[in-house]
Amino acid sequence: MRVVDLLARKRDGGELQGDELRELVLGYARGEVPDYQMAAFLMAGYLRGFTQAETESLTDAMLASGERLDLSRLAGPTVDKHSTGGVADGTTLVVGPLAAAVGMQVLKLSGRGLGHTGGTLDKLESIPGMRVELSVEELLDQVERVGLAVAAQSASLVPADKAIYALRDVTATVGSTALIASSVMSKKLAGGAGTILLDVKAGSGAFMKDVPAAAELARTCVGLGQAAGRRTAALVTDMDQPLGDLVGNAVEVQEAVEILRGERRGRMLDLSLTLTGHLAALAGVASDPEEGRQRAAKALDGGAGLEKLRDMVATQGGDPRVLDDLSLLPQAPVRRDLTAPRAGWLAEVDAEAVGRAAAALGAGRRRKEDRIDAAVAVELTVKLGDRLDAGDRIGRILARDQEAAEAAARELGAALRFGEQPVQPPPLVHEVIAAP
Amino acid sequence: MRVVDLLARKRDGGELQGDELRELVLGYARGEVPDYQMAAFLMAGYLRGFTQAETESLTDAMLASGERLDLSRLAGPTVDKHSTGGVADGTTLVVGPLAAAVGMQVLKLSGRGLGHTGGTLDKLESIPGMRVELSVEELLDQVERVGLAVAAQSASLVPADKAIYALRDVTATVGSTALIASSVMSKKLAGGAGTILLDVKAGSGAFMKDVPAAAELARTCVGLGQAAGRRTAALVTDMDQPLGDLVGNAVEVQEAVEILRGERRGRMLDLSLTLTGHLAALAGVASDPEEGRQRAAKALDGGAGLEKLRDMVATQGGDPRVLDDLSLLPQAPVRRDLTAPRAGWLAEVDAEAVGRAAAALGAGRRRKEDRIDAAVAVELTVKLGDRLDAGDRIGRILARDQEAAEAAARELGAALRFGEQPVQPPPLVHEVIAAP
Repeated sequence: MRVVDLLARKRDGGELQGDELRELVLGYARGEVPDYQMAAFLMAGYLRGFTQAETESLTDAMLASGERLDLSRLAGPTVDKHSTGGVADGTTLVVGPLAAAVGMQVLKLSGRGLGHTGGTLDKLESIPGMRVELSVEELLDQVERVGLAVAAQSASLVPADKAIYALRDVTATVGSTALIASSVMSKKLAGGAGTILLDVKAGSGAFMKDVPAAAELARTCVGLGQAAGRRTAALVTDMDQPLGDLVGNAVEVQEAVEILRGERRGRMLDLSLTLTGHLAALAGVASDPEEGRQRAAKALDGGAGLEKLRDMVATQGGDPRVLDDLSLLPQAPVRRDLTAPRAGWLAEVDAEAVGRAAAALGAGRRRKEDRIDAAVAVELTVKLGDRLDAGDRIGRILARDQEAAEAAARELGAALRFGEQPVQPPPLVHEVIAAP
Repeated sequence: MRVVDLLARKRDGGELQGDELRELVLGYARGEVPDYQMAAFLMAGYLRGFTQAETESLTDAMLASGERLDLSRLAGPTVDKHSTGGVADGTTLVVGPLAAAVGMQVLKLSGRGLGHTGGTLDKLESIPGMRVELSVEELLDQVERVGLAVAAQSASLVPADKAIYALRDVTATVGSTALIASSVMSKKLAGGAGTILLDVKAGSGAFMKDVPAAAELARTCVGLGQAAGRRTAALVTDMDQPLGDLVGNAVEVQEAVEILRGERRGRMLDLSLTLTGHLAALAGVASDPEEGRQRAAKALDGGAGLEKLRDMVATQGGDPRVLDDLSLLPQAPVRRDLTAPRAGWLAEVDAEAVGRAAAALGAGRRRKEDRIDAAVAVELTVKLGDRLDAGDRIGRILARDQEAAEAAARELGAALRFGEQPVQPPPLVHEVIAAP
């Protein structure tokens, strides 16, 4: 196989065979195929597209580049929930405990935040003592005993994806449905769960800005999961505004705890119950998503969800007293209120700009090597369609210093648009995509 | 300027500005833009195409990456003739001397052969003692005194083209009209000649297999030359069969010498006179190509062309006695006749396969670092449309050993197709493209 011949075929719109894609991807992971040939391949694929068979082969090849977790010793059902990334999207910290509370075994391998979206690991690490780097033994033991573990993905899982993702980032080839889907699904398949639920975000704060593009990605991912013999489904959900009220790290733990305590309602709770319901139905723990949702709600009301989170935190070395006293989480010294600049209906939120404002405060990373500040945050308590008077409180900035707070307040001001007319808020769930 | 943003714009079909392309190309030549980003750019450009303005900017940027020859001390008219590469295409060794003989100053910077096409430098080096690495001083002195120099292009001319060409070769992005044109023309413009004539080959032995593609490349190149203020024209000429009778290195010198001595006629002579005529008209030495052709024919008949070649060879350290005694050129030990396998009309020649057969004998290189064998060759004395009986002699193989000769004979056998019907030979010149 000459790599340049494969490039020429893809360039001319031809299809590559499974063994050819495997050689290309594994050759790249081994350092035998150089960056420049993989870059040309990615651009040709971006522009020419990939067939379903090619996307499956890419996923298989990425999967074959590393180890896979073997969950066979777990009684199951083993489940995984994955969000494609949004702002104030802390559902993992709610869905995980609720899913465990209703009888699923949740093994969630997660990443760190980059750019305007937060990462579950960073949020968890705001809990004093919390460890997210677990060995495979520790992971499986914890899932067996607690029903829930959220940990860092080890470098030995899907190394080809790691290498290819880094290259896509610098060659303007990130936004290809097939490449995104094979990246997401190879990691999910390597994680070993029998049931996979994807939360594909669509809107101003998501990678996919519109619903049709998000739905296409969702369908592709579900097809890949199905082809690999996993129970897979996807929800396309709204990211035209931050999901929760709080954007940051410690504050997102706080929001999840308040939800699990039954003290906070709203869109984050709503979506978490819906996701848990779908997971339960998909995993066979409930007869349908609605029954699953009711069971999740019961687990929340009875405090079982909070207890699962407590068990997980304690098992991973975190201080469980945080769940009773949220002031033990890191606190930002400067607090600055945000108010509505004029009367009107909240008509538009640039959710990505809200995420960027939080990141600029220190809650996110511009580069992988940046350290994050767990305490800083943006709170935005208004939602699309809300009617406000000038001067109404709409949220606040939690910052390290006054200057940063003012800069964030300016960015927030520019991210919101108020209109003269009532506004219909977007639905929380746009589409449910089940395996065919 | 972030390179990834430029890649995204080109990927999406947008146009890049001159300063952006300049930064990209010069950044690459300086090693600041990595291979993988340039590879993604080349693939995006291959698939999306380049506008005329972009192609001009690419050419300018490549030109700006290195030195340019300053020919202002030459009285002129200074001319350059460039072929896009063919098989048995030894016109430079005929056109150069004839053009010098009719009063032009020919400064031809040439390359080495790669793949199935030969290189003028390799051919010249089959003359004992011949030097092709000349300093700029030597070059200009020789052109001033002799009217003719053919030498290696120095590495300081258009280094960006050298780097980008090497990358295109391994990323399946060679065949883009804009990239080919900017590569060809940046080198011609750097060479400094005021008049540039391009011989763009079309057919089975050419890079461009069909006439429309060759004509598009020719028009693009002429536009670039024109935009840079040079008198530029192009001929699209036939490469559906080898141009001359001999494919190799020493044998192509031999063929040129025999033509200049008036001992050999045929398509190579015909095209050489046509090219010289066009050059003369373009440079203002003749009133039109026909008058130019007549002057070239007179220079040939009177022996002035042969004397120019003799002067050039002697000035560049070569043994001029070769021109009187061709047996002083390297000779191959094995000679094997080729005969027609059946009766019929010669209907098709895979000229690239003929070139590859000669290269396999040792006349060409597979890799840049390969050494060539100056003596080995393929002789093919039949042309498209010729009527043959079975067993008629159609040429011969000059080889280092019997085994190589037999292998070449088999390849030649497969490269020719004989038909039952008379065949119309292709025209020698398909199109003449002058500046608008």
